[in-house]
Amino acid sequence: MNAEIISVGTELLLGHTINTDAAFVARELSAIGVNLLYACTVGDNAGRLRAALEEALGRSDVVITTGGLGPTDDDLTKETIAAVAGVPLALHEDSLRRLEEYFRGRPPMGENQRKQAMLPEGCTPFPNDIGTAPGCGVRTAAGKIIIMLPGPPSELVPMLQRYVVPFLSGAAHAVIHSSMIRTFGLGEGSGALKIADLTDAANPTAATYAKENEMFVRVTARAESEEEAEALCRPVVEEICRRYGDVVYGVDVENLESVVVALLRERGLRLATAESCTGGLVAKRITDVPGASDVFGTGFVTYANDAKTRLLGVAASLLEAHGAVSEPVARAMAEGARKASGSDLGIGITGVAGPGGGTPEKPVGLIYIALSAGDETFVRRMTPPGRIHGRGWLRERAASTALDMVRRYLCDLPLEPAAPPSPATPLGT
Amino acid sequence: MNAEIISVGTELLLGHTINTDAAFVARELSAIGVNLLYACTVGDNAGRLRAALEEALGRSDVVITTGGLGPTDDDLTKETIAAVAGVPLALHEDSLRRLEEYFRGRPPMGENQRKQAMLPEGCTPFPNDIGTAPGCGVRTAAGKIIIMLPGPPSELVPMLQRYVVPFLSGAAHAVIHSSMIRTFGLGEGSGALKIADLTDAANPTAATYAKENEMFVRVTARAESEEEAEALCRPVVEEICRRYGDVVYGVDVENLESVVVALLRERGLRLATAESCTGGLVAKRITDVPGASDVFGTGFVTYANDAKTRLLGVAASLLEAHGAVSEPVARAMAEGARKASGSDLGIGITGVAGPGGGTPEKPVGLIYIALSAGDETFVRRMTPPGRIHGRGWLRERAASTALDMVRRYLCDLPLEPAAPPSPATPLGT
Repeated sequence: MNAEIISVGTELLLGHTINTDAAFVARELSAIGVNLLYACTVGDNAGRLRAALEEALGRSDVVITTGGLGPTDDDLTKETIAAVAGVPLALHEDSLRRLEEYFRGRPPMGENQRKQAMLPEGCTPFPNDIGTAPGCGVRTAAGKIIIMLPGPPSELVPMLQRYVVPFLSGAAHAVIHSSMIRTFGLGEGSGALKIADLTDAANPTAATYAKENEMFVRVTARAESEEEAEALCRPVVEEICRRYGDVVYGVDVENLESVVVALLRERGLRLATAESCTGGLVAKRITDVPGASDVFGTGFVTYANDAKTRLLGVAASLLEAHGAVSEPVARAMAEGARKASGSDLGIGITGVAGPGGGTPEKPVGLIYIALSAGDETFVRRMTPPGRIHGRGWLRERAASTALDMVRRYLCDLPLEPAAPPSPATPLGT
Repeated sequence: MNAEIISVGTELLLGHTINTDAAFVARELSAIGVNLLYACTVGDNAGRLRAALEEALGRSDVVITTGGLGPTDDDLTKETIAAVAGVPLALHEDSLRRLEEYFRGRPPMGENQRKQAMLPEGCTPFPNDIGTAPGCGVRTAAGKIIIMLPGPPSELVPMLQRYVVPFLSGAAHAVIHSSMIRTFGLGEGSGALKIADLTDAANPTAATYAKENEMFVRVTARAESEEEAEALCRPVVEEICRRYGDVVYGVDVENLESVVVALLRERGLRLATAESCTGGLVAKRITDVPGASDVFGTGFVTYANDAKTRLLGVAASLLEAHGAVSEPVARAMAEGARKASGSDLGIGITGVAGPGGGTPEKPVGLIYIALSAGDETFVRRMTPPGRIHGRGWLRERAASTALDMVRRYLCDLPLEPAAPPSPATPLGT
């Protein structure tokens, strides 16, 4: 079964909204074995939307639209779908009741809100458990399916998972199993070279890709059952992990921070953070993980020097002798975070994230990252990458390096990847 | 001049990478007056890419591809563009020299890396100042332009800004001016109603859209010069700001945190944060702003109760009597952050971000947000929204509410929006 996504919204073509909906829909389709061959974006223009719908229905079994269902005049998706399917819009009583319930205790519902309860006649409505605009599934006379979803991700995601996936998965037959190998500290080029022989296969397929600071390999197999598809993937995943070694931080895991939280919980250890240039990013990423309170109780954002001294006990003489961006200060921050919080492990990060503040001795991109554990403190130095990177990239890279050091420490691995060299190099303990 | 974007990559159709490139390219095109009518995504498949390229060249003046330029075998964009343009690939000496320089001090360059210096004959090459794959601009025999860009955003963004915009802006003539009005605390539906008469106009246009916690209006005008276009926008922007009132936090500003940092700097005040359920997110957002160190020196992530007591001086008896998620504890956290850091203002946030940890009395979504300033402390209570929201949404909403309270305090505005009601309600001082 082939599908296409049509994202509707001039704001997408002006670039002021990033299309996360399409990625989310794509992931859910792939999980139920629906092939996505194209995705496209059109503005809030009935003529172009109609042309895109007709073209998509000509070559695909399922067409999914996102966006253009709101209460405003430029929301034209529903009317266009009804026209293409050749059915009128009709009031959907249950959706109207939900709208009325939603507006209870709020300002009165306007006529433009009420029109959201109008749906193409004969459709399967999908309730909106978060917002106001319901979605629906429409079957055309030619047996094709049009799925209409709201644009806001907070509304689209639950509607897709709760109502659309069950609606569609009955219609799809082949099953896909995918595994995602996640690495930190490996470039895409050298990563691809190491598994070149495996990326030629047809089933399972293996594809590498880079995502800013990380490099992933997705292994995907198709079979008649989930078990068969999974059995096809397994040996390929194991071989890739063997070749990559300890830069692999997980297979089918959420992200690096969730791996670190799980490892800390397993070991019964608590972590504290002291952040200067990352400004709370490491703490934020750790507490993104539900249940992080089991392993994380205290974080310090010591952006100013006096905060480093007062909260972490970093000696003023140390700051004066070496400067805030230095190996001894990172070390003292990590130790201070651990001691001041009574935690088992402490992270300290200090550096120049830019764009200002760089000097010839301490350029933008120079960041020291320390991990204090018991009597030992380990420090890595991130040197500026060969080419220019932005503040956000440098901060994310430093935060990931800190999290990866914790992972490596807890797994008894060397605290730096052996090869290929990454921008972060060790200074020893 | 009309343009289309073709994003290339199976990872996009599998949904494991969010297409931020398309949004970035769209924004830059709009800024130089190039109309984007369609954007589409195809997988790493030469046949489908070729079909998409030919279709796009049939209806648009400029076609921009992103992705598929890497060193791996499934990177087919360059070969396909050369075939469609009817030119061979030729070694580009300068690109080869850049590649060799890039690999100096790294593991030796493989043959798959070297092929990145091959470009369509007669093209205008665009250097890659960050990574390895150069881009280029190709003119077809029919006078159309194909622009080929690498996929990683860290490489695409500088290439686009430094080389592609100058290359294209010569070819475009009409100038667009856009202004973005940003609000926090206003729903899209009621926001749209208030300006319904303004969104029907053709030049300038006004379009509303919602982005999770915020609601924006973009006003766009077309004219022969930047000055004329800007003059067309100005009265419409002023009228919308007048109607919306104090929920507008800025026009053509980066985001809420940059407005708060600028206001603090203007007033010569320093802010400190004490975060429980947001876990460092407010500090992270403030320090996303370059130069935040002028106004922000210390943040506390007091996820555990004992951290609240030890670092912020929240009395254990208070925690016992009211629980960590309570109005008095938020108040004590804000006051503690201000005093412990010697700052002028202090933020305190405590709540239940979920998914676990909710009770009938203190459900997921209940979050108290306090602002301490001098002798006064203000507290707002965020109650669970009518429908289910995720941990990330609740944390972002709480962080934005805290930042908006600082903005409102510094601008002598009521600490809550007057109308329409938002999920956050005041508890008074």
